[in-house]
Amino acid sequence: MDCTIRFEVEARDPACAARAGRLRTPHGDVDTPVFMPVGTQAAVKALSQEDLLALDAQLVLSNAYHLYLRPGTEVIERAGGLHRFMAWERPLLTDSGGFQVFSLAQLNKVTREGVRFRSHIDGSEHFLTPEKAIDVEIALGADVIMCFDECTPYPVEKGAAADSMRMTAEWAERCKARWIERDARDQALFGIVQGSTYEDLRVESVERTVAIDFPGYAIGGVSVGESKEEMQAAVEWVEPRLPADRPRYLMGVGAPEDLVACVERGIDMFDCVMPTRNARNGSLFTSQGKINIKNQRFQTDFGPVDPGCSCPVCRRYTRAYLSHLYRAGEVLALRLNTLHNLFFVLELAANMRQAVRAGRFLEFKQAFLQNYSA
Amino acid sequence: MDCTIRFEVEARDPACAARAGRLRTPHGDVDTPVFMPVGTQAAVKALSQEDLLALDAQLVLSNAYHLYLRPGTEVIERAGGLHRFMAWERPLLTDSGGFQVFSLAQLNKVTREGVRFRSHIDGSEHFLTPEKAIDVEIALGADVIMCFDECTPYPVEKGAAADSMRMTAEWAERCKARWIERDARDQALFGIVQGSTYEDLRVESVERTVAIDFPGYAIGGVSVGESKEEMQAAVEWVEPRLPADRPRYLMGVGAPEDLVACVERGIDMFDCVMPTRNARNGSLFTSQGKINIKNQRFQTDFGPVDPGCSCPVCRRYTRAYLSHLYRAGEVLALRLNTLHNLFFVLELAANMRQAVRAGRFLEFKQAFLQNYSA
Repeated sequence: MDCTIRFEVEARDPACAARAGRLRTPHGDVDTPVFMPVGTQAAVKALSQEDLLALDAQLVLSNAYHLYLRPGTEVIERAGGLHRFMAWERPLLTDSGGFQVFSLAQLNKVTREGVRFRSHIDGSEHFLTPEKAIDVEIALGADVIMCFDECTPYPVEKGAAADSMRMTAEWAERCKARWIERDARDQALFGIVQGSTYEDLRVESVERTVAIDFPGYAIGGVSVGESKEEMQAAVEWVEPRLPADRPRYLMGVGAPEDLVACVERGIDMFDCVMPTRNARNGSLFTSQGKINIKNQRFQTDFGPVDPGCSCPVCRRYTRAYLSHLYRAGEVLALRLNTLHNLFFVLELAANMRQAVRAGRFLEFKQAFLQNYSA
Repeated sequence: MDCTIRFEVEARDPACAARAGRLRTPHGDVDTPVFMPVGTQAAVKALSQEDLLALDAQLVLSNAYHLYLRPGTEVIERAGGLHRFMAWERPLLTDSGGFQVFSLAQLNKVTREGVRFRSHIDGSEHFLTPEKAIDVEIALGADVIMCFDECTPYPVEKGAAADSMRMTAEWAERCKARWIERDARDQALFGIVQGSTYEDLRVESVERTVAIDFPGYAIGGVSVGESKEEMQAAVEWVEPRLPADRPRYLMGVGAPEDLVACVERGIDMFDCVMPTRNARNGSLFTSQGKINIKNQRFQTDFGPVDPGCSCPVCRRYTRAYLSHLYRAGEVLALRLNTLHNLFFVLELAANMRQAVRAGRFLEFKQAFLQNYSA
């Protein structure tokens, strides 16, 4: 089957694995490297779709597990798909729900057939198989859809990691078969590489997954508690074995320093709740590193969050006002903080694209990290 | 002292007391009748200042009591006043805090000198006098400031209502004296008429207050639990005794049907938390009356909140999506619901202005109420 979503690598940095590309979808083009804001429940927490357009977010992630449970796949199908349901005309990606079934739901039983679990919302019982997960993602209609996988916790024994990785590979074959059977060519199905922190398992996983042949590949099972070195090692084991002409998505990674480190290692796509979750806790990115707006000294600081930032929040509001909103429990604090942090990571991605195109990614990285201390 | 804030009545409806006017302030003009969104803590709950501009809110209310306690008058003074602190360049009105001291704080003691109370935030002890309240409002720098008054609860014995009303009148004299002493001519000080549900007390109160001579007048002690008939009666007793060339502000009133009834009775200005608080509870205004988005039938209703509405929410989002956001506990639900309800009352005020200017207010009222059932 010929997938209609196309990916082109448009520039490669001469000094590292960094690349800049374009993903062409029925809902528009996405420039890579790209950071995807996370809209778990068909909404990026505290932001409207107008806000996301103003930030020029190109690709938004939502979650099949959450949407399947609430409002239910059928509601979104009747709305005409997820784009219409949430009034977001630009590209969407749905995670399959594998990660959430294992992290949120009350698990009943995992078999090679699928996963029986209870909803974290109302305790209702459900059974998800790779085929059913793909059916849900097809009903939602995102431009990029993910295979149903098992994501192992950290740390995990090697034997358990190997068993899980092999089951994920079997599930990937079933996902691909269902995707072909359903002829969902307008949705790019991505395979997911697992294998935890074990080099030979990561290598086996990427080889099995690539052998199935997907329009794109993700590296999963990172950002689950391992060190930054372990995360980067996983990328380094996997990346050279991925086909150069397919997009690579590192799941759940989004700290600014990690985005830089992993673009350097050849990653094209990222998602993470960290920028938005941090924002809701008052932790804001600046070009000099993070600050926490709850800190007492900001109560009388009448400058912007980041003097070098041109986001809508820094252009209008002061640290003192944001500090007041946070202390006063105003909902607006969540929104303004989120706008600022997402602007920061989206601008960082845009700057990295530009640096790759200019063939000076490593200089950009050095300059960025010189100021920014996590 | 010559107050620099000017009010002009530009049109009077021939068939009732409704009027259309303009209040000219150092931060811009306000067309009346006007509805003021309530930004208690220097923020209208769930909205940004950009949202308020998009809604074309002309005048925003904030609360001296809350701001005095948090972030503190001094912080706002150091920011350069409330307009700069909250980044709102258009006109502002501050309530003095009288109502809040009596409704929120732990009261210690009320004397003719002033009120000793404990903060509802941290229990700290404070003493507010009419003079101190005016000093706070001058430090905040709103375009319209309110006298420090006592607002009686409902119901209240006539003797208690009379004593309280007379104390409020004495306090009004002291507020005026302080305002003159401080030469705060760029801020219009409004007197407040009290007297509860007693005609003779309302008449005595308006006569005492008008005798002091203020740039504008408010009717307080309404919207405290009395019936709509009692509220309208209070307006009818007071309004003919107010000078025709000064703005009249009915405090705490904002239900759509009340706005219409009280514009008909000669009121120019309104504020109320009801449109925004209702919104946060899922209760939305439509031209056919209120709906509650929590109602199960909206889960699969793919039309806008109000087919006749041109607000940013109705133009983009469906009832089904708003229903989902509410059920999923998304903060965005608060914002979208608030945007819709404020648009509704601001548009209602604009339509009433237009109707008065066209000399057809009563026809407008009839047409509005024919569709709208509270």
